[in-house]
Amino acid sequence: MTQTTNSSVDVEAVKAYLLDLQDRICAALEAQDGEARFVEDAWERDPNDSSLSLTGGGRTRVIADGAVYEKGGVNFSHVQGPQLPASATASRPELAGRSFQALGVSLVIHPRNPMVPTSHANVRLFVAEKDGEEPVWWMGGGFDLTPFYPFKDDVIHWHQVAKDLCEPFGDAAYPKYKQWCDDYFFLKHRNETRGVGGLFFDDMNEWDGEINFEKTFAFMQAVGDGYIDAYVPIVARRKQEPYGERQRKFQLYRRGRYVEFNLVFDRGTIFGLQTGGRTESILMSLPPVAHWDYDWHPEPGSAEERLYKDYLGEHDFLGNWNPAE
Amino acid sequence: MTQTTNSSVDVEAVKAYLLDLQDRICAALEAQDGEARFVEDAWERDPNDSSLSLTGGGRTRVIADGAVYEKGGVNFSHVQGPQLPASATASRPELAGRSFQALGVSLVIHPRNPMVPTSHANVRLFVAEKDGEEPVWWMGGGFDLTPFYPFKDDVIHWHQVAKDLCEPFGDAAYPKYKQWCDDYFFLKHRNETRGVGGLFFDDMNEWDGEINFEKTFAFMQAVGDGYIDAYVPIVARRKQEPYGERQRKFQLYRRGRYVEFNLVFDRGTIFGLQTGGRTESILMSLPPVAHWDYDWHPEPGSAEERLYKDYLGEHDFLGNWNPAE
Repeated sequence: MTQTTNSSVDVEAVKAYLLDLQDRICAALEAQDGEARFVEDAWERDPNDSSLSLTGGGRTRVIADGAVYEKGGVNFSHVQGPQLPASATASRPELAGRSFQALGVSLVIHPRNPMVPTSHANVRLFVAEKDGEEPVWWMGGGFDLTPFYPFKDDVIHWHQVAKDLCEPFGDAAYPKYKQWCDDYFFLKHRNETRGVGGLFFDDMNEWDGEINFEKTFAFMQAVGDGYIDAYVPIVARRKQEPYGERQRKFQLYRRGRYVEFNLVFDRGTIFGLQTGGRTESILMSLPPVAHWDYDWHPEPGSAEERLYKDYLGEHDFLGNWNPAE
Repeated sequence: MTQTTNSSVDVEAVKAYLLDLQDRICAALEAQDGEARFVEDAWERDPNDSSLSLTGGGRTRVIADGAVYEKGGVNFSHVQGPQLPASATASRPELAGRSFQALGVSLVIHPRNPMVPTSHANVRLFVAEKDGEEPVWWMGGGFDLTPFYPFKDDVIHWHQVAKDLCEPFGDAAYPKYKQWCDDYFFLKHRNETRGVGGLFFDDMNEWDGEINFEKTFAFMQAVGDGYIDAYVPIVARRKQEPYGERQRKFQLYRRGRYVEFNLVFDRGTIFGLQTGGRTESILMSLPPVAHWDYDWHPEPGSAEERLYKDYLGEHDFLGNWNPAE
């Protein structure tokens, strides 16, 4: 039996939570689509194949060509590797080179209707191990929303759920992880946030100066569960919104930014590709279709311009935020 | 007047060549399209804007929605920066931190018809400068072809031009720069070459153990001029080939790989984004439309599968190469 103290890590408990979370998210999303279903691709790396730098496996679940979702993936994976790469923990480079295991749920949903925002969520546990030393573990994750069209109510709802789930963890939690999200999901070469943010945390294991597995795990669960509460109601109320070719074009153009972020900046993607992870599962986050137009700019006064002006960038969405209607 | 010895660099001569090369390439490509024209966007960084890490300017030329070209760009730029980043010269990291200037022509052409391959070419000169020391300079460049459908004759023509232009530079040149191209335009996470390669060189300034500007510049010119001879005849003979939805879908899927290469591996793109270059000019290389499908595989025996089996990967195209017809 696994012994759990406040500081020691219970990998099995986390794994059980993650598998259940994957099930619940897929069920909640499918219920909104009504037509398409997630298709599961269970995979396992051959532990005897010495050409692989990573062993382990996962449950990749993909939904495509649905009534609501053009493409989406909700992945669970649990991998082991002999060498933790630097990308895994930016703040503790001294752990690079330890063997490790990593498990998590990671998802990206690309709806077809441009009025429904794209969303992403991820929760993960890392354990870095070394013979004769205590394992070092930490959790990370978060969720962020990438709208194409400006709907004030959606953004407020998204951030209200984020704030509410943070509340049991202290007043400082929401502002801290909201800020981290704005900082992380940022395209430096565009000087743009990816969307309207949400929550992001990493390297988490301490509360009040002490390593605390239970509380960290509780926070991970709050974030994982919170994603469903944050996203599903937005899908429900926007999926029937009318749209035309103009809106579709803008969606495909903005999806180009999503590709740029994932391939240039996303730590999970880079970690996966660096460690020889399963490419198809990692790059499932890329949109089904994306466009690039040279030096495109929105028309002054348009809804597209309002997205740039009032939504992208850092805003105190639950406070002093007055987007043009 | 600029003094030119064999070892000292004549930036003005290179610049004059590059501007003329850009003109000639655009004219030759336009002649094949017959409808669309390149539109020039001349840009210059404000030298007094201290927020910019890079000064200089360029002539971005973009063609879009043509009869032949769905999107293409042929860019000239000449930029100066206070700090050479590590990505500029992988083999001489000791130069990182020097001030530098870089000038070059860089182009990517994305034809609409999937029977016409995508092509890329680039020639560039770097000069790394430091007070009280001789400037260090080197050239780089090359061209590579990314077909969607397998046409043996096109690939042989492309490589024959590459081999012929290398001939005055010694028997070792073509095999060396062909190999470098295969190695460089390689998507590690896919275990795939980007296409059928061509030539790639970098950090070039020596011939027979001596720094030699004239010969290096002559090689750069052979590569720049060679691109036109290599690509234009392929466009001419494939632009009327019939195709259907299946071929278009495969083209858009394969273009996803092009995006992956450019954003994850391309040294020029990473250099440009790292140094705060002009994002729209740098990312002009991205295709107008790209698709990603989860875990897609070509049908056994299909033309798409023949591309993977007989064209992608390392092949001795001018020697022992027997693709299925």
